[in-house]
Amino acid sequence: MAFSLIPKEVKFFDLFEQQTAIITSAAACFKELAIQGKFDDQGIERMRVIEHQGDEITHEIVDKLNRCFITPFDREDIHCLAFELDNVIDVVYTLTKRMRLYKLNVADPGMIKFAELIEQAVYSLAQAIKELRDTKNPKKILKHCIEINRLENMGDQLRDSVIGKLFDDGADPITVIKWKEIYEGAETCLDICEDIANVVESILVKQG
Amino acid sequence: MAFSLIPKEVKFFDLFEQQTAIITSAAACFKELAIQGKFDDQGIERMRVIEHQGDEITHEIVDKLNRCFITPFDREDIHCLAFELDNVIDVVYTLTKRMRLYKLNVADPGMIKFAELIEQAVYSLAQAIKELRDTKNPKKILKHCIEINRLENMGDQLRDSVIGKLFDDGADPITVIKWKEIYEGAETCLDICEDIANVVESILVKQG
Amino acid sequence: MAFSLIPKEVKFFDLFEQQTAIITSAAACFKELAIQGKFDDQGIERMRVIEHQGDEITHEIVDKLNRCFITPFDREDIHCLAFELDNVIDVVYTLTKRMRLYKLNVADPGMIKFAELIEQAVYSLAQAIKELRDTKNPKKILKHCIEINRLENMGDQLRDSVIGKLFDDGADPITVIKWKEIYEGAETCLDICEDIANVVESILVKQG
Repeated sequence: MAFSLIPKEVKFFDLFEQQTAIITSAAACFKELAIQGKFDDQGIERMRVIEHQGDEITHEIVDKLNRCFITPFDREDIHCLAFELDNVIDVVYTLTKRMRLYKLNVADPGMIKFAELIEQAVYSLAQAIKELRDTKNPKKILKHCIEINRLENMGDQLRDSVIGKLFDDGADPITVIKWKEIYEGAETCLDICEDIANVVESILVKQG
Repeated sequence: MAFSLIPKEVKFFDLFEQQTAIITSAAACFKELAIQGKFDDQGIERMRVIEHQGDEITHEIVDKLNRCFITPFDREDIHCLAFELDNVIDVVYTLTKRMRLYKLNVADPGMIKFAELIEQAVYSLAQAIKELRDTKNPKKILKHCIEINRLENMGDQLRDSVIGKLFDDGADPITVIKWKEIYEGAETCLDICEDIANVVESILVKQG
Repeated sequence: MAFSLIPKEVKFFDLFEQQTAIITSAAACFKELAIQGKFDDQGIERMRVIEHQGDEITHEIVDKLNRCFITPFDREDIHCLAFELDNVIDVVYTLTKRMRLYKLNVADPGMIKFAELIEQAVYSLAQAIKELRDTKNPKKILKHCIEINRLENMGDQLRDSVIGKLFDDGADPITVIKWKEIYEGAETCLDICEDIANVVESILVKQG
């Protein structure tokens, strides 16, 4: 293995932008499936292809990181960003597979709202990470992080509202078991977006 | 951002003591709500205020950490302590909200016992962290860590006992779903206390 | 505390081999209990003894790590390996206790298959870690990591298959709650094995 002695900072940003592009398509695909209520074999296959692209770019980032002396920001932060960004796709993919396993082929209003929140959070993430190239104007980046926190809060409220409704409506226990898991999984996706926003914020402070 | 060149070790200890004071009031509030069986809007509002105070002090610690060259112990350990201490409050706050969502406005003996264990564990945590200022007598600190491990073990047994009872009593599935989640959440709070005790122990070994 | 200035690399490898030997006996014991359907007091006592041995060796590794200047690979990687290897035993032990709590004293075909996958993954882990002593031939080690990934994939499919069956067979909700948790726990054990394989891979890349 040859260590690269020339700082190749730009490379990491390029890779992160490729990664957020993949996450953006995962979120778009997930929203489409939620609106159509089509969590079937075909829908899963579409997500699987995206998930595989996500794995490859993550692997490339981690691989480059292990071989690089000089990085644009802390090694652990790069590793954490790559890993958590990939996690967003994994959670969405797992949700898709779980919906099919539970035969929940319906356009559920709660799921559609979750899919919209996830898409918005992923959009803000992509913006924040794009602008990490130039940290001279941290306020622009922080604005996106604050928006992600707001969306995560909305996700918490949405989860409580849809799960509360399940119980209040007297849904049968098997239905409760299935949808409670799905809704909590969808909310977890927003938690991960918030975790990523926190990493971005801490990068800004350290560069400050 | 100006880096402070003067070691401000005492600052971190002051902040940690402020943080454990907030956790102590969270645990006290939680026990009170459990005894009264009052997981209603008013109870949640009391916890929300405490949770917000917790967020602020955690943010201050992380912020100071990112700006400081010299720290009284490993940066990661400070970060981990601040984060996990805040986690104790988050779990207790989440439990409170979940109790209301599930309309479990009862003084449940199992929950009261959990609240007592959490209060005791938080007390021992506060003592251990207070005494980290002076690590010349590690045995005094370790005694608190051992006590926390004991309380966590009791929490494990309590969880198994109350969940086992749910099933043995033939509770209806919806009741099982609700209380099983609540009891497991309460036990998680003690797990986090044990994690913090482990961080304290590893700090002692490194300073040893 | 006296810091050791002589590199004692071999020590860590000896300890890791002791640790994987304990995990191997945990996996063997778990498979035996699964085949016999004997998740009773006696079975739990056998697992408890193994779990305690695991705790002791983990404690010894972490303790040595905190006192050592020179380590055969990154400190965090050693810490992570020791911690996650111990986690494998903890999950298996927790599963055993949970089976008894739920009075699931049956030889369940799904559980037996999980126990076999866990045993195979643990075998590959032990081989990979044994061969970390000499990283001149990384391909030999990577072969084991790939095998662990394969087993984890099989675990995912097995979990989906057995949980899907629970719902399709119209099992009663209480049965679903119990077995769903058990099957997911068993799969988590394979996830942890995969996490460990990833740590091993990253060690190889850094040494490359």
